Amino acid sequence: MKTEIITIGDEMLIGQIADTNARFMASELSVNGFDVQRITSVGDTAEDIEQCLGEANQRSDFVFITGGLGPTADDITRNAITKYFNCQWKENQAMLDRIREFLAERGYDLTRLNREQAKTPLESRIFINQLGTAPGIWMTKRDTHFVFMPGVPFEMRKLMKESIVPELKRTFIKKSYQHKNIITQGLPEAYLAEKLKHWQEKLPDKLALAYLPSPGIIKLRLSGKSEDPKALEGLLTEKIDELREIIPDYLVHVGDETLEELIGEMLLSRGQTLATAESCTGGNIASRIVSVSGSSRYFTGSVVAYSNEVKKQMLRVNTQTLQQYGAVSKEVVEEMVSGIMELYQTDYAVAVSGIAGPSGGTKEKPVGLTWIAAANHEKTVAHKYLFGSNRAVNIEKTTITALNMVRKMILQAD
Amino acid sequence: MKTEIITIGDEMLIGQIADTNARFMASELSVNGFDVQRITSVGDTAEDIEQCLGEANQRSDFVFITGGLGPTADDITRNAITKYFNCQWKENQAMLDRIREFLAERGYDLTRLNREQAKTPLESRIFINQLGTAPGIWMTKRDTHFVFMPGVPFEMRKLMKESIVPELKRTFIKKSYQHKNIITQGLPEAYLAEKLKHWQEKLPDKLALAYLPSPGIIKLRLSGKSEDPKALEGLLTEKIDELREIIPDYLVHVGDETLEELIGEMLLSRGQTLATAESCTGGNIASRIVSVSGSSRYFTGSVVAYSNEVKKQMLRVNTQTLQQYGAVSKEVVEEMVSGIMELYQTDYAVAVSGIAGPSGGTKEKPVGLTWIAAANHEKTVAHKYLFGSNRAVNIEKTTITALNMVRKMILQAD
Repeated sequence: MKTEIITIGDEMLIGQIADTNARFMASELSVNGFDVQRITSVGDTAEDIEQCLGEANQRSDFVFITGGLGPTADDITRNAITKYFNCQWKENQAMLDRIREFLAERGYDLTRLNREQAKTPLESRIFINQLGTAPGIWMTKRDTHFVFMPGVPFEMRKLMKESIVPELKRTFIKKSYQHKNIITQGLPEAYLAEKLKHWQEKLPDKLALAYLPSPGIIKLRLSGKSEDPKALEGLLTEKIDELREIIPDYLVHVGDETLEELIGEMLLSRGQTLATAESCTGGNIASRIVSVSGSSRYFTGSVVAYSNEVKKQMLRVNTQTLQQYGAVSKEVVEEMVSGIMELYQTDYAVAVSGIAGPSGGTKEKPVGLTWIAAANHEKTVAHKYLFGSNRAVNIEKTTITALNMVRKMILQAD
Repeated sequence: MKTEIITIGDEMLIGQIADTNARFMASELSVNGFDVQRITSVGDTAEDIEQCLGEANQRSDFVFITGGLGPTADDITRNAITKYFNCQWKENQAMLDRIREFLAERGYDLTRLNREQAKTPLESRIFINQLGTAPGIWMTKRDTHFVFMPGVPFEMRKLMKESIVPELKRTFIKKSYQHKNIITQGLPEAYLAEKLKHWQEKLPDKLALAYLPSPGIIKLRLSGKSEDPKALEGLLTEKIDELREIIPDYLVHVGDETLEELIGEMLLSRGQTLATAESCTGGNIASRIVSVSGSSRYFTGSVVAYSNEVKKQMLRVNTQTLQQYGAVSKEVVEEMVSGIMELYQTDYAVAVSGIAGPSGGTKEKPVGLTWIAAANHEKTVAHKYLFGSNRAVNIEKTTITALNMVRKMILQAD
């Protein structure tokens, strides 16, 4: 079932918004086994839309289109439909009643523009939009199905989930599509690929592997399609078990949770608490932890000790340690981590100090040098990292690495 | 200059990520006068990519492509380039040196895969990627320019901003395209649009206004095109002066600086310092301030007081104040802000406490309720806000609003 998506609107072509509608539709469709091969965004121009429809017809069995169905002057998808399908529009009594009712509930009268929206193409199936006045319109041409939906995200989402997808399932969906996300941390992409080369080459044809890198994390996506969902599930599990043996130190997790969510779940279930002491990350680790709802149950807080004064005064780092080893050193992060654990009375703590750059580096301590310490009441571990020259990337990598150190420490404590 | 964008990667076709690269590129290109007419996302399949390149050639003068240039097996843009341009690849010594140096800085050796990345097409111009190993590759075919860039967002952004756009400006941009970004804070989009309606209607045809909303901030982009750069500059300045009179309380700044950069400049030039005390934002304000290079000269640090214990112990918030008014109250943020200013010995401080949600709200104190206090040695101001129901958006709005309160207070102290 070759599928494509067309999103219509000038706002995407000038970069005003990202195309989140396409993302939602692509996700809904591929999870249901549609093979989305292309996403096209095009402006509010009838000719361009018409051309896109024609091209899609030649390539695909299904085309899902959003945008340009509203009542205002720049919504010209209707004109494009008329031209491309050479169709006539007729006032649809059910639609008219629906629109009148919708407006009445909100205290508005029917306008001339709304009345236009009650017209639908003669040769089409109409899907009522519960949240707005523009309906879903399903038409076919030369064996290709075209499904037009409004561009307002929450209207499209409800229509898609509650009307379009159920209809597709009834009529077209036979195979099962599944994917698993595998989060890895600590190995750059080329090294990871080198380690997985042999395993990847032996993957059966029906499985596909993708690398999704972001600073500090590489997500692997293993996906497959089959008429036998159980066998597919088993195959994915088997391959992921192999992966666990190949990269035991780097595989964080199979699933969609983030590191901060994983840490939260682990601490909650153990009834334990965490605090952070941050220099170069400036509170980024703490804010990542707090991004998880309910984090107040295990996260006490942080001391962002950006100056040495604060390191000494709040975290009880010795003046002599700072003088002898410098702020970016094993000795200082170890004192920071015990300082914060003492101060905030937590079960776990993590402390970071680094040279985020772009300035502040020396030959001995270059930009990117970072020390991270994690601790609980039994032990303290500290590691040195050499990240790159970009400030934002260094902060991000330090944050991810620190979170993963905490995760490993909690796991090892079991 | 007809332009299109092609983004490559299966992850978009299964809806795993939204196409934020396309948004960034579309914004950069249109601001520089390129007429982006289409955005296409296609999967990691050499034939599909090749077909897209061919179609784009027929429609456009410029094609910007991201993705699929990495070192792993699923990065097959290189194969598509070979087929479509019928070109040969040769090891490029400069690229090889660059990649080796890049890896060495991070303590890695060159792998076979990295060595492959040092090969570049014979008939191409190469743009070094400062943040990764995949370069920018610029080729032409039948008068159409094709610019290939890596798909990792921060790598592409830096390459685009610092290498590709400057080169485009030197060579192709004849007319003067100018734009001004106007940062506003504190008015929702519909209200801002209402206030600016009359002004906007009277804008001359050669100027265009775009609203670029993000949580807490609405950026306005006023852009124009002219053969007379001086007159255009004058016109933009005149219109922005009018704007300053219409929304004096909401217009933060004309330019590209962020709030945290503006605050940094002001504090540096005054030789003053700042600290934050954060509850619901969990360090997000501090990490925003620290994202600015050189912030150690004016930012001392933060106490992230997520628990009431930390509020009492570290920030000297009275137990009675907490009991009587609750953690999210005027009284508590005022004590927090004086507590942190005392503790970290700074000239300015800001403190926040709110119910970020989605849980934790009551009838009297609903999710989204937030108190923010800013202070210097002369005075303390505190304001109440009612943001929405989304946790991430509430944290972001609190952060932006707190930073703007500090900015206003520094300005008023002059």
